[in-house]
Amino acid sequence: MDDDLILLGHGSGGTLSHRLLDDLIVATLSGHGPGEQNDAALLAAGETRLAFTTDGYVVDPPVFPGGTIGSLAVHGTVNDLAMMGARPLWLSCALIIEEGFSRSQLAAILNDMRQAADAAGVRIVTGDTKVVPRGKADRIFITTSGVGVLEHDLAIHGANARPGDRIILSGSMGDHGIAVMSAREGLPLEGLCSDSAPLWDLVEQMLDEAGEGIRVLRDPTRGGVATTLKEIAGQSGVTLQLEEDQLPVHPQVQGVCGILGLDPLYVANEGKLLAIVAPELAEALLARMQRHHLGHRAAIIGTVEAGEPGRVRMRTTVGGMRVVEMLAGEQLPRIC
Amino acid sequence: MDDDLILLGHGSGGTLSHRLLDDLIVATLSGHGPGEQNDAALLAAGETRLAFTTDGYVVDPPVFPGGTIGSLAVHGTVNDLAMMGARPLWLSCALIIEEGFSRSQLAAILNDMRQAADAAGVRIVTGDTKVVPRGKADRIFITTSGVGVLEHDLAIHGANARPGDRIILSGSMGDHGIAVMSAREGLPLEGLCSDSAPLWDLVEQMLDEAGEGIRVLRDPTRGGVATTLKEIAGQSGVTLQLEEDQLPVHPQVQGVCGILGLDPLYVANEGKLLAIVAPELAEALLARMQRHHLGHRAAIIGTVEAGEPGRVRMRTTVGGMRVVEMLAGEQLPRIC
Repeated sequence: MDDDLILLGHGSGGTLSHRLLDDLIVATLSGHGPGEQNDAALLAAGETRLAFTTDGYVVDPPVFPGGTIGSLAVHGTVNDLAMMGARPLWLSCALIIEEGFSRSQLAAILNDMRQAADAAGVRIVTGDTKVVPRGKADRIFITTSGVGVLEHDLAIHGANARPGDRIILSGSMGDHGIAVMSAREGLPLEGLCSDSAPLWDLVEQMLDEAGEGIRVLRDPTRGGVATTLKEIAGQSGVTLQLEEDQLPVHPQVQGVCGILGLDPLYVANEGKLLAIVAPELAEALLARMQRHHLGHRAAIIGTVEAGEPGRVRMRTTVGGMRVVEMLAGEQLPRIC
Repeated sequence: MDDDLILLGHGSGGTLSHRLLDDLIVATLSGHGPGEQNDAALLAAGETRLAFTTDGYVVDPPVFPGGTIGSLAVHGTVNDLAMMGARPLWLSCALIIEEGFSRSQLAAILNDMRQAADAAGVRIVTGDTKVVPRGKADRIFITTSGVGVLEHDLAIHGANARPGDRIILSGSMGDHGIAVMSAREGLPLEGLCSDSAPLWDLVEQMLDEAGEGIRVLRDPTRGGVATTLKEIAGQSGVTLQLEEDQLPVHPQVQGVCGILGLDPLYVANEGKLLAIVAPELAEALLARMQRHHLGHRAAIIGTVEAGEPGRVRMRTTVGGMRVVEMLAGEQLPRIC
């Protein structure tokens, strides 16, 4: 293997991704050290606290059960802002289109994008369109950036988990990744849709319920719940203890994962969040989340412990203890 | 020709681009009517006026005389903010990388990007990295978004040109487009470099000199000076009258254009600006610009007239009058 080449796994969200980010990309562009990364940057504009984020979307296929690359690009960026506790307000949209792409399919994707923006309460205020020759891109790539406003003084970030805190997951794992993979491979999975959805409304109710009891919010996209928890464990210098029998998984997702040798713990979600919350507020917050249509399967899936920094452990359904690691490379490429 | 297909010309910046934007993309995403587009969106965050913009970069080759896709992605976005009179502060960087791209070339591009950001006084505060399989993208695409702050109450936008105003171009036309094209085709053009550069420092001095006398600022990128002036003439409902013998062109650019049948008036620039300014301030502003290293070849190239809305005319060097139109499609693809 030529060490000088960028591999698919470098875009996986797993260990290879983190190493490329820490050693090269973030180090060069921002001068930040490893482990200081959150879903969005916090900025001060006069008296106003802003959050600013960006994500590129290369999902294959661009249309899948439960969404399109257009709605996905809105939800993903809205959610990155929401995970900082910021109200999403404005999006940009940069299109890179392959020559020969269908104009009517583009129209459908843009319509879906606009509907997603309207539903999420954000406006798409600026954009750019590039067309590259046939074979130089794969149909359509969309990069959205988002700006939101923090309407509170809370500090919600990955380094804020404390021993004793509870870990809440807002719903079932892996629906997005398995829905996209099934669409790509032509597997018939009746009734299984991506969970792609905008999470700000849910977050706003959570902030209202638990306020500064909410230590960390993170959406488990690429790399899934396992990777996101590994990041938080590392940033906060704590051990996270999971209970496997509390992890919500759709039976169809569990079935496909079983057949293909995938673990739903590592499969991408696009409408789920992980919250780490003060123990005394966890039950009330959970009840509030379960009353929201995007949180009705929310569950307390584990606890923060003072043990070894960066460790994630899971008590399995048969009572054993399993160490949860990041994946090295790519499990399902081009899922978002 | 199948009307349902997206063509290269739809990304040209010319007539096809404008039609796709007006009829489909901007209409769907924002609900704005045609002609309301500027280089960046203006937003109100509390008491603070923000500008927000995005651009995707697909330049081929990614390294060219005078820059790389990295520095270009910084300059282009910084300049879009500067053209709204906003001080550029923060950038995002979304990478889409083809599997197998060289890590050392990526490092060089990122270094160039950081240096460009430092020189422009902006910080790259957030980002994203995707890797797609070999053959699904062409080496590297970069999308940058930018947020800046307006530190004044001026209204600088495309609909603000008034009869009698003067048109100033900050330097020679077409250097970027011809430098990139020459690098792509392997033409040896000794000493010819892209003009890619950050324009905020020049703009800040211009604002200091002429303040509200500055009606319009626009950087003539894709589609060149001609296309940008056509846009302004349409937005402001005026005629723009150019003097061909006042248009600064590098002799090498003129030579290459002559051989290849290109018109420098339509070739992209990445470190130039067009300013439309009140007549009584034009000479002093020109002198101030000429003292700046990015404006030393600045020239008054024409006048705003009350004639037919949307028209651009040019008095040629031999004394004739030529109507300047937008190009329909693509003259030089993948120049930015």
